[in-house]
Amino acid sequence: MSSEYGKNIRISIFGQSHSQGIGVVMDGIPAGERFDMEAVKAFMKRRAPGQNAYSTARKEEDLPEILSGLLPEEGDAGTSTGACGCLVSCGAPVCAVIQNRDQRSKDYSGLRDVPRPSHADYPAYVKYGNFHDIRGGGHFSGRLTAPLCFAGALCRQMLAKRGILLGAHIAAIGSIQDQPYDPVNLDPEVLLSAGAGDFPVNDPGQGEKMQDLIASARQEGDSVGGIIECAAIGLPCGLGEPIFDGVENKIAQIVFGIPAVKGLEFGEGFRAAVLRGSEHNDPYEIADGEVRTKTNHAGGILGGITTGMPLIFRAAVKPTPSIAKEQASVSLSRMEETGLQIHGRHDPCIVPRAVPCMEAALAIALWDLYLEAEHQNSRINRNGV
Amino acid sequence: MSSEYGKNIRISIFGQSHSQGIGVVMDGIPAGERFDMEAVKAFMKRRAPGQNAYSTARKEEDLPEILSGLLPEEGDAGTSTGACGCLVSCGAPVCAVIQNRDQRSKDYSGLRDVPRPSHADYPAYVKYGNFHDIRGGGHFSGRLTAPLCFAGALCRQMLAKRGILLGAHIAAIGSIQDQPYDPVNLDPEVLLSAGAGDFPVNDPGQGEKMQDLIASARQEGDSVGGIIECAAIGLPCGLGEPIFDGVENKIAQIVFGIPAVKGLEFGEGFRAAVLRGSEHNDPYEIADGEVRTKTNHAGGILGGITTGMPLIFRAAVKPTPSIAKEQASVSLSRMEETGLQIHGRHDPCIVPRAVPCMEAALAIALWDLYLEAEHQNSRINRNGV
Amino acid sequence: MSSEYGKNIRISIFGQSHSQGIGVVMDGIPAGERFDMEAVKAFMKRRAPGQNAYSTARKEEDLPEILSGLLPEEGDAGTSTGACGCLVSCGAPVCAVIQNRDQRSKDYSGLRDVPRPSHADYPAYVKYGNFHDIRGGGHFSGRLTAPLCFAGALCRQMLAKRGILLGAHIAAIGSIQDQPYDPVNLDPEVLLSAGAGDFPVNDPGQGEKMQDLIASARQEGDSVGGIIECAAIGLPCGLGEPIFDGVENKIAQIVFGIPAVKGLEFGEGFRAAVLRGSEHNDPYEIADGEVRTKTNHAGGILGGITTGMPLIFRAAVKPTPSIAKEQASVSLSRMEETGLQIHGRHDPCIVPRAVPCMEAALAIALWDLYLEAEHQNSRINRNGV
Amino acid sequence: MSSEYGKNIRISIFGQSHSQGIGVVMDGIPAGERFDMEAVKAFMKRRAPGQNAYSTARKEEDLPEILSGLLPEEGDAGTSTGACGCLVSCGAPVCAVIQNRDQRSKDYSGLRDVPRPSHADYPAYVKYGNFHDIRGGGHFSGRLTAPLCFAGALCRQMLAKRGILLGAHIAAIGSIQDQPYDPVNLDPEVLLSAGAGDFPVNDPGQGEKMQDLIASARQEGDSVGGIIECAAIGLPCGLGEPIFDGVENKIAQIVFGIPAVKGLEFGEGFRAAVLRGSEHNDPYEIADGEVRTKTNHAGGILGGITTGMPLIFRAAVKPTPSIAKEQASVSLSRMEETGLQIHGRHDPCIVPRAVPCMEAALAIALWDLYLEAEHQNSRINRNGV
Repeated sequence: MSSEYGKNIRISIFGQSHSQGIGVVMDGIPAGERFDMEAVKAFMKRRAPGQNAYSTARKEEDLPEILSGLLPEEGDAGTSTGACGCLVSCGAPVCAVIQNRDQRSKDYSGLRDVPRPSHADYPAYVKYGNFHDIRGGGHFSGRLTAPLCFAGALCRQMLAKRGILLGAHIAAIGSIQDQPYDPVNLDPEVLLSAGAGDFPVNDPGQGEKMQDLIASARQEGDSVGGIIECAAIGLPCGLGEPIFDGVENKIAQIVFGIPAVKGLEFGEGFRAAVLRGSEHNDPYEIADGEVRTKTNHAGGILGGITTGMPLIFRAAVKPTPSIAKEQASVSLSRMEETGLQIHGRHDPCIVPRAVPCMEAALAIALWDLYLEAEHQNSRINRNGV
Repeated sequence: MSSEYGKNIRISIFGQSHSQGIGVVMDGIPAGERFDMEAVKAFMKRRAPGQNAYSTARKEEDLPEILSGLLPEEGDAGTSTGACGCLVSCGAPVCAVIQNRDQRSKDYSGLRDVPRPSHADYPAYVKYGNFHDIRGGGHFSGRLTAPLCFAGALCRQMLAKRGILLGAHIAAIGSIQDQPYDPVNLDPEVLLSAGAGDFPVNDPGQGEKMQDLIASARQEGDSVGGIIECAAIGLPCGLGEPIFDGVENKIAQIVFGIPAVKGLEFGEGFRAAVLRGSEHNDPYEIADGEVRTKTNHAGGILGGITTGMPLIFRAAVKPTPSIAKEQASVSLSRMEETGLQIHGRHDPCIVPRAVPCMEAALAIALWDLYLEAEHQNSRINRNGV
Repeated sequence: MSSEYGKNIRISIFGQSHSQGIGVVMDGIPAGERFDMEAVKAFMKRRAPGQNAYSTARKEEDLPEILSGLLPEEGDAGTSTGACGCLVSCGAPVCAVIQNRDQRSKDYSGLRDVPRPSHADYPAYVKYGNFHDIRGGGHFSGRLTAPLCFAGALCRQMLAKRGILLGAHIAAIGSIQDQPYDPVNLDPEVLLSAGAGDFPVNDPGQGEKMQDLIASARQEGDSVGGIIECAAIGLPCGLGEPIFDGVENKIAQIVFGIPAVKGLEFGEGFRAAVLRGSEHNDPYEIADGEVRTKTNHAGGILGGITTGMPLIFRAAVKPTPSIAKEQASVSLSRMEETGLQIHGRHDPCIVPRAVPCMEAALAIALWDLYLEAEHQNSRINRNGV
Repeated sequence: MSSEYGKNIRISIFGQSHSQGIGVVMDGIPAGERFDMEAVKAFMKRRAPGQNAYSTARKEEDLPEILSGLLPEEGDAGTSTGACGCLVSCGAPVCAVIQNRDQRSKDYSGLRDVPRPSHADYPAYVKYGNFHDIRGGGHFSGRLTAPLCFAGALCRQMLAKRGILLGAHIAAIGSIQDQPYDPVNLDPEVLLSAGAGDFPVNDPGQGEKMQDLIASARQEGDSVGGIIECAAIGLPCGLGEPIFDGVENKIAQIVFGIPAVKGLEFGEGFRAAVLRGSEHNDPYEIADGEVRTKTNHAGGILGGITTGMPLIFRAAVKPTPSIAKEQASVSLSRMEETGLQIHGRHDPCIVPRAVPCMEAALAIALWDLYLEAEHQNSRINRNGV
């Protein structure tokens, strides 16, 4: 078991990098939700490869084909492909498929014998034996984030209709840092602007420096990691459950599903360790007749439950393991050490393309939590003792 | 839904800080597992309050009563209480209950009106209304980690029988840091020694300084946070599933269930962001006829799957929100701002008691992953094409 | 895994016939639900043993102790035992425990060697080995329906508050049949009256004959089976999901959890096989401004979804396998055939006590379905395209 | 949520009768399982429409396209379509899609207003509003059993490799009955022979009479129901879990997912109600050094667990609701009663095509149970106290 997520919305992701197709089934979208498919495509394009100098050259449109669950607006018209315009959910599971058009059948037999350092090759070999589909990383490929982004794009639109907005930006590439979000007064425009540009940062000047760093890593046949900051505003207080199904738990379960993520922190996160309680605690205030906190070290979550303040987390992304420099590895068949040179063009930095993935993951987690809480709230309001 | 975890082992935690009892149901322990109940008690004692100068004065033995699922060794003897000696699982769900003996019915009505900053009081009020059991934090209380530790103690023993050992230590209190684990050659004695002492650190000298810092925070009516490092050795390569049920995802889902955890990182974690791929990648080698990596920046996990190297993660724990210093809050009934003074004795630092909780969480997650993978391996070995 | 049920309400049942206690954890009861505990006790008493001539002599009160999740009405009073009066849910999981007071440590070693025909003894031996708790059937015992009835009693009250009523009666003992429910106009009084009496039938005259049949079976050292009919009214149209989570699927999953149930049919059930479509189809009509069906061969379910008509199902209960007559069995240690004489007093017919269990199972399934659908409806109403 | 099943193997079914495609994702197939795709096609053909006089004229090949999870035998060859020959699982989720080629965009607007009696039209309208994809029944269509059969075909092959065989036949059409299976000594040839023929019965003479009955129902513009008997042999003793995850529960949850199933009984089922315990109990014997029962009234299941004897169940299938005869219905827009005439050709009896669906459902349930139990057994064997 592996590739399913969620309780109220169920996401099941399938496919390998070089299988005939990859895709996602989403079970649990309410009937009557209308989706702007152009916006879905635009969102997915942010993740797509081959767009600019700093990403891999593999060019695929990665546009999803809708097999089920979404209909043209009239409901029963003949054209159900829905490649453009708006589609409306009918209540049945949505399946979207992306065909893999770029399936060059190059020789992967060497790869099978000599695992690439810091890729999943070796544990996948131990786990699945020679049956593992090693081509392009198989089911472990970053390509599997394309259906994740499709699912996230739908959830994002459903949340936006309820007043919940989310965004992300590159917080750091190497040691070059972007301007962080204001955790107390997070402006919707700021939240959405990074994603609208070519290189998702708040401060374009810092973005330039980051791109220079990525370019120099590429030139050295090396790669570089970074940090992504992600946020949501407009959340009601009360989403999330105690203990194992809290907001942090649910977000963590999906965010660690994005390849290369090695760390996750909410609010102050690891910086909380060096703060006193009197510094870290967020005092309450009344503002415009609402209860708010004056600071937001908690990142909008207490006891696993949203407070109504902006939800903020940061994820660490490791440097791309595929580098041009020669590396030490082993031959599994001969059980002896050997050098490895990885050929082909690879992203010297996966962080920019991981930004929309992070938003997608957050959108799916929040939509699942939203449904759960909406559910409860309606009951509590109704059933006074 | 909230308090359940796991697939192959199911943990269901119940209780509030001041309910009649708290406990856990564990569904999925195989028949015929023998448990040393003295070791279970000793492990739980590491988490228990009131043990020394730096923890809360509430004294409860917190010893679990076994209602079901475990029998004395003979199998059908008359005494099924099993308070001591060894117990053996019969295959039915295990239920353990800890009675809450210290239920002083003090007045909590003020608490209900004026939420404590950075506690779950306010979101719980919004979520559950006045029905929330606010006494001692209710279901959000740190007391609920006692049944978590019971469950972890059983899983820990089952893992140890399979050669998998785990431990944790305080990596930092404030800015005072302990000696970290060696991620490549992690000695079992080192791994287990911190937990054996009164104050779980690798370097007793640093432990002294941490205790001084905690004592000074208490004197100032304040609190302090920290970081816990947790590790497991002896893991086979191949545990964990791609995408959403990877080792990181599963550990994250349970670790964020421990109150006050705000960050989690595996291997280099956030430090990976400032490393080049050539620095972060772990080259393979052959040692004693086994495939290993020369370094272990990955923390023993690639593609969500264990590599066979030590599994290492770090969790950030925020400073205890209950502090003696006056704080700003609001009256929910009057919707106006007000000051709040929290009385009573509280842990000025929850980190030392969170160490066994972290081990418990890791043990449960690993046992669930172990069962899943054992399952698959047996099938792969058997079913060669 | 075994003893958990449900999605929106999670039921986890634990205990063995002779373990220290048996019980249930219910995760997912909304905060603010008020429960009449006297009614809970009265409902559970309908299942309790030792009440009259036709049930086993083991006398246990089987009253549940509430460990968590329910509070006295005031919310924070000192007495949280809640043995009487009304209790209110706080949103945390509810745990109820029934102590096993009647744990005579008689010798079960013979039982372990010679399995009782048509009991779970033999498959449990194969599955769990000698670790199986064989005393009184262990986790397979009919005693485990006591916590099921507790959970059902709570769900029943929550449903009743929403206008959904349910009941059951003995449809047949051997070939003696009771008056069936009217599937189209099912009067609430009729629905509830069978359960109010000592012997749950619609037609007391037929009830007399059934009791005579049971008495004669007992005298012959034999046992007898029967059929239970169960119904619910007041259900909105629209509960249930297509394919695997339909009303029939969900009810079936829980009803087959009641020991001795070997068949289940909805509406006409097996009789549908001999009807033509023109006979079996339920034509629509308008009555009092509502859409209804003139007949109800469907038992109130189409496509897995409630129609708003009475929901009706029948379950077949096999004759109690514990009989006094000598039977053929085998010695597992010697692997040879041997005779077996079962001593002690046993229910010659489990059907009367299974009636409230059936209602409990239905109540839990409907509550789970109700939450799911309430959820959806609120969304559909709100989100018109 | 609706269209997912299973724990160790997860089945997620998607599609509507007239959406672009329908299909299934199967998560949890072990790596290295080899599948004969010709046998898969042959099995699916047994369910396909338009094959003979008694089934609907809609002609679709319904052959699945494999998008992921299965590879040609060599492992990394260029051709991954796998339309023929053998395919091998790589451990990643399998997705199979069937394109809907026969999507005539006829006018369904009348259907939306006047629900067909005993179809899901009306409850689907209430549940999903006008957003429901009403064309051909949408997600409620019997067409969705095609991906179920694909999934079942794979599970069937994996079971057969472990010595577990299964089959089904038409036990009755109307009141014409076929020869039942021998529940004690069920010959593999008998078990498999019904499915090999055009009309799946044990006694061809009775099959002729059944076909005559179906033909006469069609001539009258009517339809007829029936009963299917399904069995499995070669099962080890010990599959299934107590209480809610027993063999009966698991089979019931999936079998009621096949449209038109209204009843399910195991072993004697409803006939158990009229038997005495002394008649119904299955005495044990030793045969060829194995423990067996002399009779098999239990249908191979005790306490929810397989006994090692043949597993036998029967399912009732209601008469097809689509009949040519005029029926009474209502106009939902005008809220008034009206007549309804259903045009087009429909199966006058769905039972023959439901036979392979029943086998598929059984195969999936057994494979899920098999994985669970294999898991446990391996642990029990290894971990003697």
